[in-house]
Amino acid sequence: MDYKEIEGGVTAAKGFLAAGVHCGIKKKKKDLSLVYSENVCTAAAVFTSNVVKGAPIIVSKEHLKNNIAQAIIVNSGIANTCESDGVEKASMMTGFVADALKINEDDVLVASTGVIGQPLNLEPVKEHMKEIVSSLSKEGHTDAVSGIMTTDTVPKEMAVEVDICGTKVTIGGMCKGSGMIEPNMCTMLSFITTDVAISKDLLKEAVKSSADASYNRISIDGDTSTNDSYFILANGKAGNKTITEKDDSYYTFLDVLNYVNVTLAKKMAKDGEGATKLLQCDVTGADSEENALILAKSVIKSSLVKTAMFGCDANWGRIMCALGYAGVNFDPDIVDISFIGKCGEIVVCEKGKSIAFDEKKAYEILDEDEVIINVNMNNGENSASAWGCDLSYDYVKINGEYRS
Amino acid sequence: MDYKEIEGGVTAAKGFLAAGVHCGIKKKKKDLSLVYSENVCTAAAVFTSNVVKGAPIIVSKEHLKNNIAQAIIVNSGIANTCESDGVEKASMMTGFVADALKINEDDVLVASTGVIGQPLNLEPVKEHMKEIVSSLSKEGHTDAVSGIMTTDTVPKEMAVEVDICGTKVTIGGMCKGSGMIEPNMCTMLSFITTDVAISKDLLKEAVKSSADASYNRISIDGDTSTNDSYFILANGKAGNKTITEKDDSYYTFLDVLNYVNVTLAKKMAKDGEGATKLLQCDVTGADSEENALILAKSVIKSSLVKTAMFGCDANWGRIMCALGYAGVNFDPDIVDISFIGKCGEIVVCEKGKSIAFDEKKAYEILDEDEVIINVNMNNGENSASAWGCDLSYDYVKINGEYRS
Repeated sequence: MDYKEIEGGVTAAKGFLAAGVHCGIKKKKKDLSLVYSENVCTAAAVFTSNVVKGAPIIVSKEHLKNNIAQAIIVNSGIANTCESDGVEKASMMTGFVADALKINEDDVLVASTGVIGQPLNLEPVKEHMKEIVSSLSKEGHTDAVSGIMTTDTVPKEMAVEVDICGTKVTIGGMCKGSGMIEPNMCTMLSFITTDVAISKDLLKEAVKSSADASYNRISIDGDTSTNDSYFILANGKAGNKTITEKDDSYYTFLDVLNYVNVTLAKKMAKDGEGATKLLQCDVTGADSEENALILAKSVIKSSLVKTAMFGCDANWGRIMCALGYAGVNFDPDIVDISFIGKCGEIVVCEKGKSIAFDEKKAYEILDEDEVIINVNMNNGENSASAWGCDLSYDYVKINGEYRS
Repeated sequence: MDYKEIEGGVTAAKGFLAAGVHCGIKKKKKDLSLVYSENVCTAAAVFTSNVVKGAPIIVSKEHLKNNIAQAIIVNSGIANTCESDGVEKASMMTGFVADALKINEDDVLVASTGVIGQPLNLEPVKEHMKEIVSSLSKEGHTDAVSGIMTTDTVPKEMAVEVDICGTKVTIGGMCKGSGMIEPNMCTMLSFITTDVAISKDLLKEAVKSSADASYNRISIDGDTSTNDSYFILANGKAGNKTITEKDDSYYTFLDVLNYVNVTLAKKMAKDGEGATKLLQCDVTGADSEENALILAKSVIKSSLVKTAMFGCDANWGRIMCALGYAGVNFDPDIVDISFIGKCGEIVVCEKGKSIAFDEKKAYEILDEDEVIINVNMNNGENSASAWGCDLSYDYVKINGEYRS
């Protein structure tokens, strides 16, 4: 796969512009973002599996019925969820954008993130519509990614260029975390833009498949949010021959899309609330890929594993314990466990039993900002990875006083 | 039900003695406990559902095949799990006790709790066998409950006297928590003794039923331990007509057994690692009891609900969110949520939507050491409760440096 990372995030692809402003939902920080394509796009999305769904999801789902969209409006600070007039408000937000951009209201998608159960004040959104539309630009990706952040400490965006059958295609995106994050879509918003030309059906399939390979493999705190949304807009401006079947072009596109989404997902995991490090659990040698993923997720989700990693404590018994309650049957007596960091690998458990290891070296590895927990089930050829973060004092601090 | 709480814990019932000593597995604190009945007992148990099982469980299961036991030996500090000679060691522990007490090795049960994957040194256990046997006494229940504690901050024991068909029957017990606690048996050891006379089959049924009503409804951190064990010994010394069918006597016994176990379970939840308060989630108005329990457990397990409760923040949106991802279908638009404490009740959500409430009063309720999260699904007549605790800085502190 011949691709290279480039700057530009959500506006890296041809024909996309973005902007982000402070409208007043939050006290000081940017809280309103807009992504816009110069022409209408083929569009697809994946939403939260939570029974309680944010009002913006109901509106965006309706607007996506024809798989066409041209703009995305996003506010942060208030989730617009569990409010009696939430759907009307989400719908009005798309109306403001349609009026200001002179596009179909039906082609505007909407997302919100923030506190559940508090009313969203639409006045500031309405008042700042002219400003945000007039500031749409190629450079606007940095403001746009700021406008969708809540407890995120760093903006998360990326873009990649790839050659598809001789044509340069660009995929870019931005996302936000960083609490209520759990496989099956997180409190997570992710917006991907691309200039690829692709059929509606294949874009829908690609968005689902890439969500399963990325966002559905991270967990911050086990809480599946009410507002998770992952949108993709493809405007076809790259000029490639439209992808209409599962040929090499499709799989090249899917590979790069997965790469973009996995990279963004890892950025989210690393910036999980209070996180001091990114955890990756690689489960290899499993009897099926499905079981490998279940086991990897169970380790990544364990509060006891997460606190041990925060304390740089090579307490591998907790990893074995988390494997054991994952709901998958296996023989503990053939499992190997090691920790991998930039400074090397240290084996801490062989055939399900403790072995002597250098605690100092283990500490050094676990003290890095990216740690791989490597589990070999020694029972097959299948593997899967999941991502998460450690559990620190700051997670408690952030979430003990979130509303205040 | 005519019962009263009495002192005496695990030795309250006729014919039971206990002792606890410091043998040297832990640095200073008591780490070895023995419970003994003067005659052989009908016995039953429930063990962890974790695929990775502590060695003591394998030995105790074997010894329980005939449903007869006379003594329980327990060490804390080391879990005797994931060690190559763990089963031999667990077996040797039962042998030491059998020799010292001159009873069948087969009638001794064994349990361990502590760090996984570190070797259990049997020398101190062996050396202190004479001491612990010679200190068996009615008063020994307080030492015995100390000897099974790990990160527990308070000993947990209780006993109840009840009249069964004109005969006074006593049920007592002790347990320990307080991390790796999650429905489907926790890092939890619970030892119940009773002088009731009951058939093997009914005791087995009662132990399973009472575990489901108590220990399987608490969650501290979502981690199901490898070593969970709940033993019950019934020595028949009360002199009641042996319970052999599901008559009034059986149900009286089961009710009191449930009461004892629920009380011990709540003590564990309240003393969860780093906990500052007991949380109880009552789900009422559900379409089935099963769904009510699933919903209550989901709320109790949510890290975001737990941190909000730690911060005394009436952030009910997180409760709605946790209900939504529980895996049960429901209509969010008819759900009511309130918080209940000793100082009153405050409704914070009606028909799925926020209502104005007195934040100061909400804070006062949430600042108590026992808080009920009351959820009415308004969709039926079924209800269930689950128990847990808040998530505090101290949970992270305790678990970030557990082995050191």
